[in-house]
Amino acid sequence: MSERGALSPAEIAAATGLARSTISMTLADLRQARIVVERVPSNPARRVGRPVSAFALNPKAGTCVGLHLGLRELRLLVADVSHSVLHRAEIPLGLDYAPPSAVRAARQAIRDAYKRCGLPLRSLLGVGVAVAGPVADDGRVQRASVVPTWAGVDIRRTFAAALQAPIFADNESNCGALAEMTWGAATALADFVYFKIDHGLGGAIVVRRRVVTGIAGAGGEFGHIAIDPQGGLCRCGNRGCLELTAGLGAAVERLSRRVRRSLTIEDVIGRAAAGDASCKDAIADVAAAAGRGLGIIGSILNPGVVVVGGRGLAAGPLLLEPLEAAYERHTLLKRAQLSQAHRVRIVPAHFAEDGSLMGAVALVLRRYGGLQNGA
Amino acid sequence: MSERGALSPAEIAAATGLARSTISMTLADLRQARIVVERVPSNPARRVGRPVSAFALNPKAGTCVGLHLGLRELRLLVADVSHSVLHRAEIPLGLDYAPPSAVRAARQAIRDAYKRCGLPLRSLLGVGVAVAGPVADDGRVQRASVVPTWAGVDIRRTFAAALQAPIFADNESNCGALAEMTWGAATALADFVYFKIDHGLGGAIVVRRRVVTGIAGAGGEFGHIAIDPQGGLCRCGNRGCLELTAGLGAAVERLSRRVRRSLTIEDVIGRAAAGDASCKDAIADVAAAAGRGLGIIGSILNPGVVVVGGRGLAAGPLLLEPLEAAYERHTLLKRAQLSQAHRVRIVPAHFAEDGSLMGAVALVLRRYGGLQNGA
Repeated sequence: MSERGALSPAEIAAATGLARSTISMTLADLRQARIVVERVPSNPARRVGRPVSAFALNPKAGTCVGLHLGLRELRLLVADVSHSVLHRAEIPLGLDYAPPSAVRAARQAIRDAYKRCGLPLRSLLGVGVAVAGPVADDGRVQRASVVPTWAGVDIRRTFAAALQAPIFADNESNCGALAEMTWGAATALADFVYFKIDHGLGGAIVVRRRVVTGIAGAGGEFGHIAIDPQGGLCRCGNRGCLELTAGLGAAVERLSRRVRRSLTIEDVIGRAAAGDASCKDAIADVAAAAGRGLGIIGSILNPGVVVVGGRGLAAGPLLLEPLEAAYERHTLLKRAQLSQAHRVRIVPAHFAEDGSLMGAVALVLRRYGGLQNGA
Repeated sequence: MSERGALSPAEIAAATGLARSTISMTLADLRQARIVVERVPSNPARRVGRPVSAFALNPKAGTCVGLHLGLRELRLLVADVSHSVLHRAEIPLGLDYAPPSAVRAARQAIRDAYKRCGLPLRSLLGVGVAVAGPVADDGRVQRASVVPTWAGVDIRRTFAAALQAPIFADNESNCGALAEMTWGAATALADFVYFKIDHGLGGAIVVRRRVVTGIAGAGGEFGHIAIDPQGGLCRCGNRGCLELTAGLGAAVERLSRRVRRSLTIEDVIGRAAAGDASCKDAIADVAAAAGRGLGIIGSILNPGVVVVGGRGLAAGPLLLEPLEAAYERHTLLKRAQLSQAHRVRIVPAHFAEDGSLMGAVALVLRRYGGLQNGA
């Protein structure tokens, strides 16, 4: 229901396979607890014949928080159960910040946000945490995390003690994929690859509506494909990881040094769009490297759809065209040899920047929404 | 039942979730049709108390054929419904043989086999075909197949016309994974990667008991990971495919030229085991290249188990040790940083050589076996 808006009991029965009697009883309970509300159906066709009730989540029933633990900053988003965004904040923490300072900053930021929005803290249903590193099923960040200070930390326990709320944690790109699956470009897709080009390179693999997390939470770590064994050292400890050439981070740093000021991804894309040749080339180079990696992913998974997310997406065709060309060159099956139905479609994500945060919100809502969509 | 031998109605109920009354009725029908037979339970513990019937597939109820369309030869296996192998044959066809000659050879080989075994051809339930190339869901071999003469051919239609039997087709490595899942090293695994080192390099990805086929049947084409964009040309048309260094084919050819006679994979492994330094080095080089590729697969999928199959497996630790070392070096998550439960296990396949053929048999049996194991 948190993914579908208002539904009638019959639709709930069809979607869940539950008995009508079970649904009636459960809906009565949820109405009493004011978690669902009855709505007048907006579709006039439904008014023909016997009136049918439709039920929706009560937007006032609760709120949830999405947190994103980035490399250098904490981002926060407050949403209600109908996933309307009520508040956003970003708290810079500096590179390699310590987890306790992030937890303190999160607690303060949540209090500030609820005060500013006039929301009672007791409406907080849960906090979803998106982490820039693999998170195992026990809620622990793996040692090989690209955020070394988080290595080995149990996210759920660490935040639950400070925030007094249920905590749900997952990798940032898995969250991004979940957001696309729930509200974005992949709502109708059973299987897809989420491919995120941002400072780093990340992603997720979705098979039959579930993220393939892997045995230790490191499924979809596309940025750490060992593309060049003689390449430079990566933050993860390996050499020649794909993200060194296919993430925008290194390009943005290089261009910043060149113009002697600190550029952002948005600056570089803006300059490229305005015709700056070195910015255009830098984006094309990143896209070519990313496309080569995606071609490898293509030979391994042969996905039907690749949803491209991350801030790189704002570059539009400057990024997507060389990306598709490199994919085509380096993957096994070629477009021209395939029927339309067997070709990969490379499509833009719905959430270019906020994917991880919206996915963190989805981590909470899918626990409280009652109706899940297989996620 | 085709996967589990004899089962009691209670065990069938537990395995299927069907009502006992439904099972009784169905078993009665199947007994009448002589598809299942009643067996005296072999386990004496079961004889305590009220006697329990056990039912098994009637080995005489039907037979099936597994075919493997290799690069240069056709292999055939006849099995009964309890998957006992009744007959094997191998028919050399020469490189780049034409599909019609393979179909004719298959028809003749099946007739010969049934005659030699004294089996009536009318007992043939179906033919499973394992193909050395991607097979789409419509039964058509994709144009990028490594067997170029099969490109675009509809396997089901082509063989059905000549063999007068239901045809089931899939990629050879997907068949290998299915065999491991059904009777081999992966019967208890929900998720695994099948990684096959033979002349070429292939594999399959299994998620929640189903092979990830990809949109065009090319899931798990590990041999065609574009590992070296400046590398040599591959049969598939791309450059620097992993299989050029991580398949045993090139090494066997190189060693054959060196000793001026045509060696087989078995010859090279035998010489290596006997201490021949160039054969040992060749296997170690193949293993290192394969391990690097597997490390990339590890960063993408983070599998809990990798089942290593193919004829390379006969090299034992000569292959598996450098393979594991290279995996460890090139993948994101390192053993030492992980708890036992989060580490990958690299295990040998049960079917080293016959995996594809047994999987082709499983393609047929899972349609007729009645009880499926989620495959």
